[in-house]
Amino acid sequence: MTKAGVNGKPKVAFIGLGAMGRGMAIQLLSEGFPVSGFDVNPMSLETLLAMGGTAAPSPRECVHDASFFICMVANATQIEHVLFTESVGAVFGLKKDATIILCSTVAPGFPQKILDQIHHRFCRPDINLVDCPVSGGTLRAAQGTLTIMSSGAQNALRLAHPVLQSFSQALYTIDGGLGSASKVKLINQHLAGVHIAIAAEAMGLAATMGINTKQFYDIVLKSPAHSWMFENRVPHMLCNDWSPHSALSIFVKDLRIVTSEGLNENFPLYIASAAERLYQFAARAGYEKEDDSGLVRIFIPQNLSLISEATHRESHAADHERTSRMICLILSIVHGVAAVEALSLGIKLGLSIKALNSIISNAAGASKSFAAVATAMMGQQIAPIRTLTQSRDILKQATVIAQTYDYPLQITTTTLQLLQQAVARGLGDQDQAALHVLWNPLAL
Amino acid sequence: MTKAGVNGKPKVAFIGLGAMGRGMAIQLLSEGFPVSGFDVNPMSLETLLAMGGTAAPSPRECVHDASFFICMVANATQIEHVLFTESVGAVFGLKKDATIILCSTVAPGFPQKILDQIHHRFCRPDINLVDCPVSGGTLRAAQGTLTIMSSGAQNALRLAHPVLQSFSQALYTIDGGLGSASKVKLINQHLAGVHIAIAAEAMGLAATMGINTKQFYDIVLKSPAHSWMFENRVPHMLCNDWSPHSALSIFVKDLRIVTSEGLNENFPLYIASAAERLYQFAARAGYEKEDDSGLVRIFIPQNLSLISEATHRESHAADHERTSRMICLILSIVHGVAAVEALSLGIKLGLSIKALNSIISNAAGASKSFAAVATAMMGQQIAPIRTLTQSRDILKQATVIAQTYDYPLQITTTTLQLLQQAVARGLGDQDQAALHVLWNPLAL
Repeated sequence: MTKAGVNGKPKVAFIGLGAMGRGMAIQLLSEGFPVSGFDVNPMSLETLLAMGGTAAPSPRECVHDASFFICMVANATQIEHVLFTESVGAVFGLKKDATIILCSTVAPGFPQKILDQIHHRFCRPDINLVDCPVSGGTLRAAQGTLTIMSSGAQNALRLAHPVLQSFSQALYTIDGGLGSASKVKLINQHLAGVHIAIAAEAMGLAATMGINTKQFYDIVLKSPAHSWMFENRVPHMLCNDWSPHSALSIFVKDLRIVTSEGLNENFPLYIASAAERLYQFAARAGYEKEDDSGLVRIFIPQNLSLISEATHRESHAADHERTSRMICLILSIVHGVAAVEALSLGIKLGLSIKALNSIISNAAGASKSFAAVATAMMGQQIAPIRTLTQSRDILKQATVIAQTYDYPLQITTTTLQLLQQAVARGLGDQDQAALHVLWNPLAL
Repeated sequence: MTKAGVNGKPKVAFIGLGAMGRGMAIQLLSEGFPVSGFDVNPMSLETLLAMGGTAAPSPRECVHDASFFICMVANATQIEHVLFTESVGAVFGLKKDATIILCSTVAPGFPQKILDQIHHRFCRPDINLVDCPVSGGTLRAAQGTLTIMSSGAQNALRLAHPVLQSFSQALYTIDGGLGSASKVKLINQHLAGVHIAIAAEAMGLAATMGINTKQFYDIVLKSPAHSWMFENRVPHMLCNDWSPHSALSIFVKDLRIVTSEGLNENFPLYIASAAERLYQFAARAGYEKEDDSGLVRIFIPQNLSLISEATHRESHAADHERTSRMICLILSIVHGVAAVEALSLGIKLGLSIKALNSIISNAAGASKSFAAVATAMMGQQIAPIRTLTQSRDILKQATVIAQTYDYPLQITTTTLQLLQQAVARGLGDQDQAALHVLWNPLAL
């Protein structure tokens, strides 16, 4: 077995060759790293083999002689399984001084727990570990242009970076030690999860209120209502394409990580939790293995094709303009309040808004409102968009209109309640960033 | 046509002979009132005719020569239709000095709006109007043992009471003028709507966690987790009986009235709104015309018979006890926090807690937690049940457990967030009644 590639690059073991992992492994190969792969599903190895990689029969054999072991399985349970399973686990085959790169999205406390076990329970204090969650989706994984957050001991990061660079466009080092990168990923997933859910809520409302959904989509892209997820996921809704570009079950898991962290910190996550329940309802309705954009179907069960049918609809120009404007405002305001909730959690977890802003602006959690709120929360003067009282009144009016359709505004209503609370507490004249005190009540 | 019964009792016109109205009209007949009925569905008149009533071909003819006109149609739109439709509306046939008794559940501002129209637009200043919403369900309607709230001008109330007494067990007069009774009904419906929804959430969780649902039901009835609605509705869930004892659409409407009033008052109704969205999702899923207990199906879409199948289940004794205790605590705490939200809204609307307590304790909004919270909010010393910190920790633990099932705790999580907020604001050592400040933030 090759110890190093022809160009002297060290061997990389790659476990977890799903939609994301496959793209990353192929980038490694094309950069000249010898790659040995393992996946419980042998089909997942085919592309790797075709591109010159090798296949291993177990995690233990996969990591043999590899300087780096990238773990890109679906969740924490699978990581423990891959590493620690009696006799075939990777921990029994790790090369001296090897570096483990955990790329899965996990709870921030998890990487340290794993490293402690490797060092103490398995008596391998020579092993390095970094947590390197990624963002960007399968397309950017295949292009080698992912956003990667990394944290861990200095030495481990120094070793891992040349490998990580091969599949990233933007590679960030997060201060604060092992787990800090997972904290940043958690904030990104909070936003990304909420943005898909509010995109679904908004598109269901647009279709229910009778406007042309394709035209509405085009309007959002050019407006302050834009989010990365809206742009990326709504096209699937517009053509009823529920094939799993990214399975809904991923956000059931990722929002569970987000809200669990909120519970640990006694930190109420009103909006993330409202979104989580939508994903849970959708998963229970049988949409778990399909694309996360398919969440929209719980809003339109009477006609699951309503959004795509409405792409051909002719709507009265004045109605279309009024309704589009209203739903764009819902999106902007919800994105903004979600940004305050997510950034407040970030502060609570010890992260800097500056770091979160620069990373998330290039990741799946990005939105125009997020950028504005983050800038304001960093204390920079920006032209105020609207006061909290104005935002509240806009969402009140939207809620009254949606009620005439008995349309369930799960996330919009939750956002409205936070605005009502803030106005009642005397913050009505301020802008969205002032909502931060809702998560820091003793500061008021 | 009879002007008065053989015993001299005045003629009563009754419009809206649905499940509730039919029982009420029959009570009137059995008390010796001559009753003339009208309903858009002629089938609804059959029982009335069989019992000695008469049928009218239009609202206008129905109210002819009647001293009282009881309106028990489904909603405000139907009331306007019955009263004001060109040429056949009741307003064109009302006897001089007749008294209109509005029994439908409507927004508190609606009765005065109707009376103003009758007095001014239709130039009938002689007409009296009282708003008399009822509570108790179809069984108590048939038995003549409804709870009735009444409000309006003194003279109108004096006239209406002998009629109302014929179908009520408890007849309350609410101070504050026309619409005040509808405010009390609104508070009752807030609680009743939330109690059905949390009963569904709890029963779905019990079934999902593997305990025997019939045994769990029996435990709740004897515990502080009891609510009138839990006792009344869960039996339908236990035997998959979705025939409309009370249609789900009624609570879609009634919670819309509740949350609309919250919007008017800039008063955030976290729990009622979380419940409303469950009813809206259930209505959209096609359960609108079936029994409101059928709401539970949105929690268990994979197996719609899960609750009834679990009545035969043998569960491990220790698991059963632990899980039952946990879900009983969820019910008690949610009922308690919902009571604070509802009573705080009542105060905001100018109602007295004392009046709300005595009425709702005999109505569908009753629960053991409600009684305890109302007593505490009246300033009476009661043995504290648990602190807000304890309640928060119980719901945190329950949420963590439910997350392992990816079970959507819509109302429980919303309640938990309010408790988290209260503890963060320094109220952790106090009991549930102290939560009132969340709805009155400037009082803190």
